[in-house]
Amino acid sequence: MGANKLNITWHDRVLTKSDYLKRNGHQPLVLWFTGLSGSGKSTLAHAVEEELFRKGCYTYILDGDNIRHGLNSDLGFSEADRRENIRRIGEVAKLFVDAGIIVLAAFISPYREDRERVRALFEPAEFIEVFVNCDLAVCESRDPKGLYRKARSGELKQFTGIDSPYEVPFRPELVVNTACYGVEDSVRAVLAFVTERGFLGGDW
Amino acid sequence: MGANKLNITWHDRVLTKSDYLKRNGHQPLVLWFTGLSGSGKSTLAHAVEEELFRKGCYTYILDGDNIRHGLNSDLGFSEADRRENIRRIGEVAKLFVDAGIIVLAAFISPYREDRERVRALFEPAEFIEVFVNCDLAVCESRDPKGLYRKARSGELKQFTGIDSPYEVPFRPELVVNTACYGVEDSVRAVLAFVTERGFLGGDW
Repeated sequence: MGANKLNITWHDRVLTKSDYLKRNGHQPLVLWFTGLSGSGKSTLAHAVEEELFRKGCYTYILDGDNIRHGLNSDLGFSEADRRENIRRIGEVAKLFVDAGIIVLAAFISPYREDRERVRALFEPAEFIEVFVNCDLAVCESRDPKGLYRKARSGELKQFTGIDSPYEVPFRPELVVNTACYGVEDSVRAVLAFVTERGFLGGDW
Repeated sequence: MGANKLNITWHDRVLTKSDYLKRNGHQPLVLWFTGLSGSGKSTLAHAVEEELFRKGCYTYILDGDNIRHGLNSDLGFSEADRRENIRRIGEVAKLFVDAGIIVLAAFISPYREDRERVRALFEPAEFIEVFVNCDLAVCESRDPKGLYRKARSGELKQFTGIDSPYEVPFRPELVVNTACYGVEDSVRAVLAFVTERGFLGGDW
């Protein structure tokens, strides 16, 4: 690179969300999937991400796999730790949105107040709460990680839906019912919502 | 979007770093700028980011402005809090690298052990420690935020270089001396290093 190709400005020139937006061709966004363990949040989020990625969107998933083993490895499952867990995830989502990225966050996030606090970090149009609604009995019958079994036997304490509350969203942007509909239909519902709201620009 | 355009796979299909890499056309990377307050870390990081962005790289800055007011707003400046501050920043950088992004992190990060712990989160080629070397006297004479004045008067406690240690890196990938060289030369040095190491692919 020749010296004369440098175009450095020293003062107050900082790349902003709008620079990233122009480059990426779509608005940044948080798709916040909330629901019981086993409701299909993570499956849904990954499937939606893959579709968005294939369409050329800049995306990233935040879920238990990459958060609980890293950033929040110091937190447990007490109410205080769960609140701090969600607070930090919200702040990380904000950094990704600032970088122009569509964040898909899949966490039980059982407390309404915590989710509202995350929502408040964003512009109204940037935050989409997706309630992944599924009856406890159905979630428990799926029990993909055997967690309900452990919770019922008392081996696992403070398990959402068993001995820890889940507070249903009052006004989520979108509800998908994964007890009645397959995940493919649910993915389609999320994509339709995002598209109709004009978040992605261009011709979908 | 027509139903038949959905291409959903349900099991274990998760986008990986290599998917993002293919799309972005360059490796993800952490450029970790460490040095005293006033050494020019943040100025340098922003200027390098702008150049990389102009070249088409996918970049994001982590610095005090977006971390201390958000994710780490619960932390102070005690040794324990400083360690936790750097730990969390390292974990967030890891998420961005996982998303295929070049992260520029500009933090005093005074403790060697903390920086090494961050380094250990990454592949060897992914982490570049840039020691922004500048004599304390020069940093203090710049004092862009008036912090050294406050530290000298005792108004500010535990200030790195005054009453809190700064541990010089033993083996940083790169040292830039901002007391002897202007920021433009320093930017050039960082870009040359990154380019020579082949991180960016293509023809620079």
